[in-house]
Amino acid sequence: MVPLSSTFFHKSSSMALWSLLLLCCFSVLIQFTLASEARYFHWEVGYVYWSPDCVENALIGINSQFPGPTIQVNAGDTIYVNLTNNLPTEGVVIHWHGISQFGTPWADGTASISQCAINPEESFVYQFNVDKPGTYFYHGHFGMQRSAGLYGSLIVEVAEGQKEPFHYDGELNMLLSDWWHQNIQDQMVGLSSNPMRWIGEPQSILINGRGQYNCSLAAHFSNGSKFCDFRNSTHNQCTPKILSVFPNKTYRLRIASTTALSSLNLAIGYHKMVVVEADGNYVEPVAVEDLDIYSGESYSVLITTDQNPANYWVSVSVRGRLPNTSSGLSFLNYYPIPPSVPTSPPPIPPPWNDYNYSKAFSNKILARERSPKPPMNHTRRIFLLNTQNKVDGYTKWSVNNVSLDLPATPYLGALKYNLTNAFDERRPPENFPDDYDVMKPPVNPNSTISSNIYMLGFNSTVDVILQNANTLTENESEIHPWHLHGHDFWVLGYGEGRFSEEVDEKKLNLENPPLKNTVAIFPYGWTAIRFVANNSGVWAFHCHIEPHFYMGMGTVMAEGIELINREIPKETLGCGVTKTMLNNTGRLNNTGGLPFDWGWDERSTLKLITFLSCFFFFFSVLLYRPSLCILPLRALLFRIMGWPSLGRYC
Amino acid sequence: MVPLSSTFFHKSSSMALWSLLLLCCFSVLIQFTLASEARYFHWEVGYVYWSPDCVENALIGINSQFPGPTIQVNAGDTIYVNLTNNLPTEGVVIHWHGISQFGTPWADGTASISQCAINPEESFVYQFNVDKPGTYFYHGHFGMQRSAGLYGSLIVEVAEGQKEPFHYDGELNMLLSDWWHQNIQDQMVGLSSNPMRWIGEPQSILINGRGQYNCSLAAHFSNGSKFCDFRNSTHNQCTPKILSVFPNKTYRLRIASTTALSSLNLAIGYHKMVVVEADGNYVEPVAVEDLDIYSGESYSVLITTDQNPANYWVSVSVRGRLPNTSSGLSFLNYYPIPPSVPTSPPPIPPPWNDYNYSKAFSNKILARERSPKPPMNHTRRIFLLNTQNKVDGYTKWSVNNVSLDLPATPYLGALKYNLTNAFDERRPPENFPDDYDVMKPPVNPNSTISSNIYMLGFNSTVDVILQNANTLTENESEIHPWHLHGHDFWVLGYGEGRFSEEVDEKKLNLENPPLKNTVAIFPYGWTAIRFVANNSGVWAFHCHIEPHFYMGMGTVMAEGIELINREIPKETLGCGVTKTMLNNTGRLNNTGGLPFDWGWDERSTLKLITFLSCFFFFFSVLLYRPSLCILPLRALLFRIMGWPSLGRYC
Repeated sequence: MVPLSSTFFHKSSSMALWSLLLLCCFSVLIQFTLASEARYFHWEVGYVYWSPDCVENALIGINSQFPGPTIQVNAGDTIYVNLTNNLPTEGVVIHWHGISQFGTPWADGTASISQCAINPEESFVYQFNVDKPGTYFYHGHFGMQRSAGLYGSLIVEVAEGQKEPFHYDGELNMLLSDWWHQNIQDQMVGLSSNPMRWIGEPQSILINGRGQYNCSLAAHFSNGSKFCDFRNSTHNQCTPKILSVFPNKTYRLRIASTTALSSLNLAIGYHKMVVVEADGNYVEPVAVEDLDIYSGESYSVLITTDQNPANYWVSVSVRGRLPNTSSGLSFLNYYPIPPSVPTSPPPIPPPWNDYNYSKAFSNKILARERSPKPPMNHTRRIFLLNTQNKVDGYTKWSVNNVSLDLPATPYLGALKYNLTNAFDERRPPENFPDDYDVMKPPVNPNSTISSNIYMLGFNSTVDVILQNANTLTENESEIHPWHLHGHDFWVLGYGEGRFSEEVDEKKLNLENPPLKNTVAIFPYGWTAIRFVANNSGVWAFHCHIEPHFYMGMGTVMAEGIELINREIPKETLGCGVTKTMLNNTGRLNNTGGLPFDWGWDERSTLKLITFLSCFFFFFSVLLYRPSLCILPLRALLFRIMGWPSLGRYC
Repeated sequence: MVPLSSTFFHKSSSMALWSLLLLCCFSVLIQFTLASEARYFHWEVGYVYWSPDCVENALIGINSQFPGPTIQVNAGDTIYVNLTNNLPTEGVVIHWHGISQFGTPWADGTASISQCAINPEESFVYQFNVDKPGTYFYHGHFGMQRSAGLYGSLIVEVAEGQKEPFHYDGELNMLLSDWWHQNIQDQMVGLSSNPMRWIGEPQSILINGRGQYNCSLAAHFSNGSKFCDFRNSTHNQCTPKILSVFPNKTYRLRIASTTALSSLNLAIGYHKMVVVEADGNYVEPVAVEDLDIYSGESYSVLITTDQNPANYWVSVSVRGRLPNTSSGLSFLNYYPIPPSVPTSPPPIPPPWNDYNYSKAFSNKILARERSPKPPMNHTRRIFLLNTQNKVDGYTKWSVNNVSLDLPATPYLGALKYNLTNAFDERRPPENFPDDYDVMKPPVNPNSTISSNIYMLGFNSTVDVILQNANTLTENESEIHPWHLHGHDFWVLGYGEGRFSEEVDEKKLNLENPPLKNTVAIFPYGWTAIRFVANNSGVWAFHCHIEPHFYMGMGTVMAEGIELINREIPKETLGCGVTKTMLNNTGRLNNTGGLPFDWGWDERSTLKLITFLSCFFFFFSVLLYRPSLCILPLRALLFRIMGWPSLGRYC
């Protein structure tokens, strides 16, 4: 008979075990029910033949589609995109434009910055949370792959059970882009040549990946152009996606621009638009006749279908550059009227160079009540002068006379693991000479090349004054839409000429500045933004014009790297010095002999600790303090090893 | 006074130390003097605009040159090519065609086989020995980058002080290629599409990277074509490189073909050629009027300038396919006659489909006396049926009904480090059905996709019977030049129809078969080769027609991996599972917690050994056997550590 105490002990210990198991199951259950939804996507990225504007070209599609599939999820969801690279020789990454990537800086999808490009035939899972409802998009961020058609919509609806602060009956989506017939390899060679060969104006403007190059939906109203019969199914890849609506309803129109170059103006014939969202942030509702949108921006507008049931033009025109491209066209079609060409011509866009018109629009975009307000003071203010330059005779774009050249090693891995020689560690300038005349071409156009990284104090409040200037050509200054990864920023204001802290400081809007992730600088003007560097990671901040960024118009912002308390997925570290310095097998070079790189890492420490633990267990317990029935084992060991008894020492 | 014995001991120990040091210096000195010459090259690979045939296109150049720089070295030299990849989004590798890579299988430059492609912005040093004099070349081996112009000559002269077994007064070099105006991205998309879009016949044949598309050097002798004035400097990239010779001399003409598709025939007006070398191996001298050369082959011929001093045509014409491409042309120009168009038309090539003519030429190529002879018996014989097939409706090329799809992970690293799931490990078939009718299109064209690896016993003698067959089209069978990496093979013979062991076995030439690295199979015929699997590594064996290999016409041969007694350079292991399984920092997936991959490797062993040595030195010498003035140190240590004296134990 077993004594009671012992039985009780056994019983209680078994009860404890059961309780532990139950607790464990329970916590797993809680995790599952409380956790946001996981959304899985499987993508194959590869070249396909496509006719976005009725002219066939090879472009980069996803799952043989162009544009890539629309992701529509709810705020709080976790997205898993398992991407397989089927490009034959090119790496690939996907940037999730406007998604903060809090806690997942390696998933930002910027080659050379957040990760090594995914190699051909490899798969990589982008895993990240979408924390904020809004209109976003995704696109390639390696070389000029965005220009090759690698993009799509990313729409984050409010979380289940939540409501938007405005009402609508239905929603429509418009992803805007511009399109060239020249393939991107040729575009890139031209831009990197001396003399530089400019890509020119796009052949077409695309709405949801569809445009018309060699024919026009509005042929009735112009001379010489051929009518595109949109009911003709032979060209179904360039048939406009018609926006179908019921009468007397309110629609949310989600608009995003992933153009390579063009600033755009969108108008819908006879319909006003009420802007309610910009870059995933609510804005004070404002009614407009038409909407300016720059590459990298997104808006939601509400339209009310209160006109006579008919077809109305949806027209997207080029702004800020002498247009050489026909407007992108589609129809707003009222049920039950059959789709057809509207009876009057498409809306006439504002003159391309009426910048006051554009500025007036930008100044109307203000934060909605109860939006987060900016800190009243900045910790640091960085001035970034935007210029066109020369480096060794090659045409470049620069900030503060430094042109960005992305390194072979991603900054994120290099900084996290303190790898040296991964990039140019010189700190770029925070300002530009007092006597620089922004109204004239640069006196000395020679620029330098750098990795252009700004190290920001964690949680510091950073102001950036983006200062525009004259290009290399007299009397020419271009629009540059700047996009910041990993953050929204407050747009404190826009101004003319060179920013002056005496004069312009007090004009900055600290009351209701809008939160955005992309903002334009207008010709010869400045734009002031403020953000809090509270997102551990390395974040690109660059002109969103694809050829401008390709030609060096960008910087990189790093913050809180020391606070990243988990390892960076090694799938993202297969290039540059992350490849050779983190990979413990193989030698650094082919010199033979023993590896001269000792390569001590956390794993080595772990091994040593394990070994030492075993050794001292063996040494102390087994040899010096035998107990717990270990004595016979010790005796056996000593006999096997032929050692004398240790008894005399103990 | 110190006792003599002690002084002597000290003296002798110091003498021993000095001797050791001297010995060390001496051995280093010997290493330096005996080592072959090291030859260094710095290459930047990038797209450039070029007009190879007077039409401008973007192509892949090396150091902004096309073709890439000629490497001219001596047998025994060690080559170091420090290659920087300036392609914006594409990886790159360079294969050294015909170089055995004994001891350096990772330098063979085959993406997915010997290494991961070098990423954009990265540098990689190809280091290898050239052990055998001969006419070689190098080229891209990733996707279809060879077709984009990534190639150049690699000429290995005999070692210093050695002599060739034939006399010549000077040498000339001709690297032959074919050229398309469509860029390779578009070519690749077309080939991977369903229905497949064939690249068509080349626009031009290039001699040393120069051809003429929209004009002709031989316009005098044809109707309608424009004359290319080769003295016109505006088109200097497509001006023929004239072969300048002195009268009454003997020249060695080195000829290599890196065509993407075309089989070629070379003729020099009024000059016989004596073939003396094939693929880096001496052959029995044989005089020919013209020379057939397949992609991947190289020859040296001797010509004697015994004709009237004048200009003579050098003409390169397409064979084996209905020609739709003008002959590539240049002149043989006798000093002191000025270069000009010869007075008679270019040589007329043999009819394109006169295969008997081609076979007769191939059968003339035999080993020179005293060349290495093949083993009399084979250990293993593999039959490889060459067919055009379908996989899921896509057009492919296959061997034994298996189409090669290269994996994300290079086989070499995967096999060396026993990585699982790196590629499809199923063993491909060694034969094909007895009832397969090689004269008919495949009854069931459906093929399968595989990594297609053959594991060969080290030092085994392997026969491969390459069996040609009908394509998917009735009455069509194409030439396929097969190239083996890492080895030369003996060409035992060519035959018609299906190889029969009863009938054809005894026809095989074991007496004087030529050693080659590339050999053609003729329409509906077979070619038998034999090689000894004596080179540790993983070696591509494939059809050298670029689009055929891209469409799966290849296999991989692995041998002696277990004998590779050094680590594979980790620069070559940054892709696929080599990236994630060998990189010790970061986790295999994003699950958090401790790394679950213990990752024990040679370096870990080294660390443990070092630790144990230190520990036991400390333990035994310092604690138990104090001597050599170490006693005060021990006392100090014990005082610092607060340990009791160990005296009572010792």
